[in-house]
Amino acid sequence: MAPSSERVVRIAVLGCGNVGAALVAILAERAEALAVQSGARLEVAGIAVHDVTRARDPHVPVELLTDDAAALVADPSVDVVVELVGGVTPADQWVRAALEAGKPVVTANKALLASPEGVALRSLAHRQGVDLLYEAAVAGAIPLIRALRESLTGERIHRVMGIVNGTTNFILTKMSEQGADYADVLAEAQSLGLAEKDPTADVEGYDAAAKAAILAGVAFGYDVAGSEVMREGITAVRAVDVEFAERLGYAVKLLAIVERIGDDALSVRVHPAMVPRSHPLAGVRDAFNAVFIEGEAAGELMLYGQGAGGLPTASAVVGDLIDAVRNRQAGTTAPTPERMPARLLPEDDLCAQYYVSVDVVDRSGVLAAVTKVFGDHDVSIRSMEQEGHAGDARLLFVTHVAREGDVRATLAALADLDAVEEIGGVMRIIGDGE
Amino acid sequence: MAPSSERVVRIAVLGCGNVGAALVAILAERAEALAVQSGARLEVAGIAVHDVTRARDPHVPVELLTDDAAALVADPSVDVVVELVGGVTPADQWVRAALEAGKPVVTANKALLASPEGVALRSLAHRQGVDLLYEAAVAGAIPLIRALRESLTGERIHRVMGIVNGTTNFILTKMSEQGADYADVLAEAQSLGLAEKDPTADVEGYDAAAKAAILAGVAFGYDVAGSEVMREGITAVRAVDVEFAERLGYAVKLLAIVERIGDDALSVRVHPAMVPRSHPLAGVRDAFNAVFIEGEAAGELMLYGQGAGGLPTASAVVGDLIDAVRNRQAGTTAPTPERMPARLLPEDDLCAQYYVSVDVVDRSGVLAAVTKVFGDHDVSIRSMEQEGHAGDARLLFVTHVAREGDVRATLAALADLDAVEEIGGVMRIIGDGE
Repeated sequence: MAPSSERVVRIAVLGCGNVGAALVAILAERAEALAVQSGARLEVAGIAVHDVTRARDPHVPVELLTDDAAALVADPSVDVVVELVGGVTPADQWVRAALEAGKPVVTANKALLASPEGVALRSLAHRQGVDLLYEAAVAGAIPLIRALRESLTGERIHRVMGIVNGTTNFILTKMSEQGADYADVLAEAQSLGLAEKDPTADVEGYDAAAKAAILAGVAFGYDVAGSEVMREGITAVRAVDVEFAERLGYAVKLLAIVERIGDDALSVRVHPAMVPRSHPLAGVRDAFNAVFIEGEAAGELMLYGQGAGGLPTASAVVGDLIDAVRNRQAGTTAPTPERMPARLLPEDDLCAQYYVSVDVVDRSGVLAAVTKVFGDHDVSIRSMEQEGHAGDARLLFVTHVAREGDVRATLAALADLDAVEEIGGVMRIIGDGE
Repeated sequence: MAPSSERVVRIAVLGCGNVGAALVAILAERAEALAVQSGARLEVAGIAVHDVTRARDPHVPVELLTDDAAALVADPSVDVVVELVGGVTPADQWVRAALEAGKPVVTANKALLASPEGVALRSLAHRQGVDLLYEAAVAGAIPLIRALRESLTGERIHRVMGIVNGTTNFILTKMSEQGADYADVLAEAQSLGLAEKDPTADVEGYDAAAKAAILAGVAFGYDVAGSEVMREGITAVRAVDVEFAERLGYAVKLLAIVERIGDDALSVRVHPAMVPRSHPLAGVRDAFNAVFIEGEAAGELMLYGQGAGGLPTASAVVGDLIDAVRNRQAGTTAPTPERMPARLLPEDDLCAQYYVSVDVVDRSGVLAAVTKVFGDHDVSIRSMEQEGHAGDARLLFVTHVAREGDVRATLAALADLDAVEEIGGVMRIIGDGE
């Protein structure tokens, strides 16, 4: 496609935080190259913000700021809309208005995409024949969505497992490398700006759950909402669990997992997991993201990179923007096959190996009583270690593959034993001779 | 796009080795899903082979075999051509005939693509407005080409470094993990079918050089031929070099590197390199491939997966095939921006840190003489270790960043010293505070 300096595509940018400011800077600095790649000059028509008087990054042209996002989207001179506001409402209304007007939308908004509103918007885009692109919504700069949507579209994918939240990976990396406690590392992450003042969305796994829901759609063609995702955060992960995992040859990672179970069920979940050190995901450190894909023909793939940050996220937005502009000129759209409703695997039917740490009173017969509880619930023990400390003992179990329901029943029964003082860490083990 | 059971796209498959047989099997087994994804039923029109009487994989329908590839390509009922023959001639003629007839071509043929004939074919495809797709030519199943061509098309890429040859990575991994010699591990790789009887193309870096040339085009937009790539294989890598590298915290990897130098020069090269163990490429083991990309906005990315094998390579071919079929129906093509001729950096101007091992006679004054040679040629020494053995000594140097030309002059001058018995390993160091 030959570049044309005549052709101009006008872009509405909604939101001007880190990503918006980085996007505006890239569009200005790389204007020539982007015109060659997209076949049109990309011009920012306006930037919608909440407060036009707030101080901005010097790259942001103040004269383009507006506080009327709806009017900007509706402006007939606007060709494409980039939504970087975040949250479900009112972003959903602006995206809807754009799609209804036949304007392609590029968004980084994982919360919106994983909501029922997002599902409806995707379906609207499909009916309208307009692009709704969201490479930046999962794993930042990593070209994951396009790989799944296009390169691997012919592939039968068995499982996608990702480190998709940089904040929690940073915390778990530091806990591992410094032997530090969760609370201390969280405070460090907050002081570095890597964790929010209210870290709930990250540390409780809500952010990762939204991304898991999006991956269920892109990789498997199933409509899943973020709220349907089985979710466990990292707040219960203790330094001692991380240390024990390492001793056994595992790294602890918060994983978003989407897995085909049998012919028609899907398990979509977020939880901390023990990953063998030889697994490529185990080496992903600090705030980096990585997604590991297992396909029938392609085998094992991993895509690694920066999952957040203004420039990396803006880079993914730019890739989508070029796509949207090219597609618009060619009168086509990115592939969006029909989605099916998912049959989600009941949580109790999940099968995995488990790590279980139990604090007990150190007296004779306790070990026998505890192991009997496992056996009574069909949970087979693969290995056990006992650590004594001051009259008490800690029992560290690794099970063979067991049903989640049976493990939960085991934990409940253990808690009822007199000799059991506390059920400590419980973690699933992944990628180890499954 | 709605699937249509009416629409049929007929595919000519040229070549039926591992990849061809796997492709035919996937097209049969995944027919329904591929029809949904591509919008058409994909039908194999014929499979061109050298010898139709040879025994084939049971998935290959014997009645589709033909030994007349040219006639199959010219068959008016054929819509798309998949070229899996390998080598430059006669594959180039069949690809040319297909493109001239307006038929999209999917190829896994890196040798062809990195040849002058390949450059001409790409240009022909561009002029004809027909797809010439080659995801499978570099790093097998890894969705690398599409990531560079589409996701990162707006990105200013600084450097691409890849482990793109599984055979040599297998050999280097075994040398490292078993402390074994090159020759022994090569024999093991040959017995496992991981290395050819004549391993030259792999171990001397020709295969990686072809892939580096292709990456120069896709990632940087420069036309480079495989024969222009600076190339050094792994045959000179000794167990002792690998061991020393590990002691210093490096893994030895054969890397294909394409790097922007200044505003207008490109360094395209293949050589063994010492990679810091903390670098994501260092953990890529056995026959796996991985490509590490450094972009201005995206930051560091890595794509990892199986670089060879029938099914993984066929998986990449299927992704391209769906693309070609979809594009054909939409009347568009994959983006193929104009290429520029490259100004390749003269080899002597390359700058890197170097590891140099020198065997010397163990007598007083030798170290001073040797280090003086480095100094005389402006090569600054960062660290030195001396290992004595039986009257001789081995000096292991790591330099600061130095010009390749200066290092070469240093090595030549060292070889002239009486006290120097042998220049042993010489290796560049990558990714370490460059």
